[in-house]
Amino acid sequence: MTRRRIASGKTRGKFYLRELKNDNTRNMARQLSIPKGTRDYAPDVMTKRNYIFDAIKEIFQRHGYMPLETPAMENLTTLLGKYGEEGDKLLYRILNSGDFLAAASNEELAGRNLLPLAGKICEKGLRYDLTVPLARFVVQHREELVFPFKRYQVQPVWRADRPQKGRYREFYQCDVDVVGSHSLLNEAELLQIIDEVYLRLGIRTRVLLNNRKILSGIADAIGCPGKLTEITTAIDKIDKIGREKVNAELVEKGVPATAVERLQPILLLEGNNDEKLERLQTTLRESPAGMKGIDETREILERARLAGVRAEIKLDLTLARGLSYYTGAIFEVKALDAEIGSITGGGRYDDLTGIFGMPGVPGVGISFGADRIFDVMTRLDLFPASSTTTTRFLFANFGEREARACLPLLRALREKGHNAELYPDADRLKKQLTYASRKAIPLVVILGEKELENGTVVVKDMNAGTQQEMPAGELENWNK
Amino acid sequence: MTRRRIASGKTRGKFYLRELKNDNTRNMARQLSIPKGTRDYAPDVMTKRNYIFDAIKEIFQRHGYMPLETPAMENLTTLLGKYGEEGDKLLYRILNSGDFLAAASNEELAGRNLLPLAGKICEKGLRYDLTVPLARFVVQHREELVFPFKRYQVQPVWRADRPQKGRYREFYQCDVDVVGSHSLLNEAELLQIIDEVYLRLGIRTRVLLNNRKILSGIADAIGCPGKLTEITTAIDKIDKIGREKVNAELVEKGVPATAVERLQPILLLEGNNDEKLERLQTTLRESPAGMKGIDETREILERARLAGVRAEIKLDLTLARGLSYYTGAIFEVKALDAEIGSITGGGRYDDLTGIFGMPGVPGVGISFGADRIFDVMTRLDLFPASSTTTTRFLFANFGEREARACLPLLRALREKGHNAELYPDADRLKKQLTYASRKAIPLVVILGEKELENGTVVVKDMNAGTQQEMPAGELENWNK
Repeated sequence: MTRRRIASGKTRGKFYLRELKNDNTRNMARQLSIPKGTRDYAPDVMTKRNYIFDAIKEIFQRHGYMPLETPAMENLTTLLGKYGEEGDKLLYRILNSGDFLAAASNEELAGRNLLPLAGKICEKGLRYDLTVPLARFVVQHREELVFPFKRYQVQPVWRADRPQKGRYREFYQCDVDVVGSHSLLNEAELLQIIDEVYLRLGIRTRVLLNNRKILSGIADAIGCPGKLTEITTAIDKIDKIGREKVNAELVEKGVPATAVERLQPILLLEGNNDEKLERLQTTLRESPAGMKGIDETREILERARLAGVRAEIKLDLTLARGLSYYTGAIFEVKALDAEIGSITGGGRYDDLTGIFGMPGVPGVGISFGADRIFDVMTRLDLFPASSTTTTRFLFANFGEREARACLPLLRALREKGHNAELYPDADRLKKQLTYASRKAIPLVVILGEKELENGTVVVKDMNAGTQQEMPAGELENWNK
Repeated sequence: MTRRRIASGKTRGKFYLRELKNDNTRNMARQLSIPKGTRDYAPDVMTKRNYIFDAIKEIFQRHGYMPLETPAMENLTTLLGKYGEEGDKLLYRILNSGDFLAAASNEELAGRNLLPLAGKICEKGLRYDLTVPLARFVVQHREELVFPFKRYQVQPVWRADRPQKGRYREFYQCDVDVVGSHSLLNEAELLQIIDEVYLRLGIRTRVLLNNRKILSGIADAIGCPGKLTEITTAIDKIDKIGREKVNAELVEKGVPATAVERLQPILLLEGNNDEKLERLQTTLRESPAGMKGIDETREILERARLAGVRAEIKLDLTLARGLSYYTGAIFEVKALDAEIGSITGGGRYDDLTGIFGMPGVPGVGISFGADRIFDVMTRLDLFPASSTTTTRFLFANFGEREARACLPLLRALREKGHNAELYPDADRLKKQLTYASRKAIPLVVILGEKELENGTVVVKDMNAGTQQEMPAGELENWNK
């Protein structure tokens, strides 16, 4: 009876697929899709992603950071107004349950005034990043938390952005922050984390470092202290659009031509970090903010050196990072061997929780770009074989009696920590070997009628193409 | 300058909190909340949850199951109609971006007809379980997948249910399924997985086993083959409402009193599994389905025994499981030492993907209830110390010079695989020790002025209350 079931299972599987192709349900199956800008992570991708996430999380924990998770849905009162007008439009809103029109008057419905109406029919939204939920969490739990609060958070975020190459509507952020400490040791620690993560993953990097206080000092020094936002926004684009266009934008934004001219030697500053800081110390000598920024940068570099950071850290005065909430050091990491945007970025903000009525709590943090790291590692072929294999031993299935003899052997291997599986159906061997090679399983164990009689197994090495017979009881000691 | 910043950081931290309490922003902070039925997982909870998830995932992989993740948002066409009318109402719908009213006519808006209107303004919804996304994934990728497809998936799902004790609107499911194989070896493997997971977590369990075909056979045997759904739905409640009420419900649902009477000896069947199966074989002898169910159960039990399953597996004829898509074996796991519902459940379904136009693909799977497992482990105090500790060494901070001397020691410890951190600010020692004890850090390293001079460190054991001085260079060899 069992054999019949196994056999019918085998034929059925093929039959269905063929049937599907000649069937009007085929169109239904063909139309299946997932929302634009979202992705399924199939097992081969998932194991690689987990390899990245596991490395990053382990290193976060090695430095005393602890995991936090917050709900996918936040109240819209928490989210709205935190990402600018543009950001508000990109929030995914959740329709209220039950009578979602209850709060909307007939006039409002007839008026089709979208934003106010959305506010009436939706109270919740999907989280847009991990920073606002962190701020909300810290304020909400300020009495129970122990500060400095060192947390990491690896969760998806959602943005109703136009999907395009490398930009998704659902993607993972991978943030690490310390909240409640002004010490520059934190900045040095984040540089260490960057260094250790990329050393582990095998990606050669350059870390770009700047400081908002230096940018402030530059605005002071060129006589435009009121134009800091315009200046940082413009220089932030220097990599993308070039210096000429940045200058044009500055003039357009109301920065006097003389000031733009005085900015040029600073943007063009050459030399190593010490030389740049030396020159800046002269240029910014009248600006207390600028001088503080120089001091901070020196200290961070010195402490990173003492902590043994191996990656090159380069002071880059054109690094500005768009977000206006940064107040001190800012970081960005570039992969040396792949043309791609920054793979990690972050900085110090001195008022994370002010938006929620708890002003002045300082923090510093960085975010690892999982998708870009994945792309770099794929392009440079950096995933080790271990990150793409999950099962080590596949036991081929030659029928009921042989399969039963496999069960204790499987158990013994698993108890020794090996991942092992028995092909569940007595399909023809070729199909079972295809299964092994498609799943990248390196070893296939053959226990057929002959081996059953002899008390042996044959282990087939799928990569080398070799095979070796041994007593069944010795298989559990396999350690190649 | 640094010292001043460190010092001001210290006082500021306290100042803010005090200020907050006397300030009108206090109300704002107090009002912060997350949506009803959702949860923040703070670090102490997260580390315990991760301990559970890591154990489960490792055991899934040990048996050849691979990770899959699907998007939080699915098209509503994928989700609607899959969970019954009640389920459709519990789906969270995402408001379309941009002009979400574009497809809704003035008449429709004025008519306030909720369901059709929701269909016009929302195209996407949040996933409700992991089974429908699995079916959608399998059909969509049927040409690339290798069958049998063994996958696990650990992700949150969302249901607009009324929140109550132990029922949440966002919660994790932890599913493991094999798709495309009829072999009963799969059922035996899932029993092994259950056994290994709970052995690892230290929860003593009893596994309840039944088979839909046996239930079918029972319906045949009592002369009511057309009433299978009513019978399973009623018997499913026997644990909660008792046999009397089940009988009343059966009569109410149109099962003749004579049939209900004939059902009683079957429900009351006593003895061990073999005895029960023996008796059933007589009772169900006229029902081919019933006889097949008995055969399957015997085979599953025999194979689980050969595979070394240690947990008690009990044939329970009153186990029915509500979901109508089960067609073969069904499982449920109870914790022996805690009063709580089932902590794992599942079964075989022979038409997972028919809803998406690919009929007859068989599968079998189970789902681990992470929240209930967490509750059981908390009540029985089963979390090992290692699951609640992340940092092993906290270096106290006595000022800039001492802190700098800590950096190479920290690095050496981390390179040996220890989690270690330096308290970032030179706060008073008492505060730093409180930090260590709140974070459950077992060892505090003291490197003050005296130790700096002597080239030593003092290691304070927070649990034992003891301390020991040693040369600084020897700390990295710590292995207690």
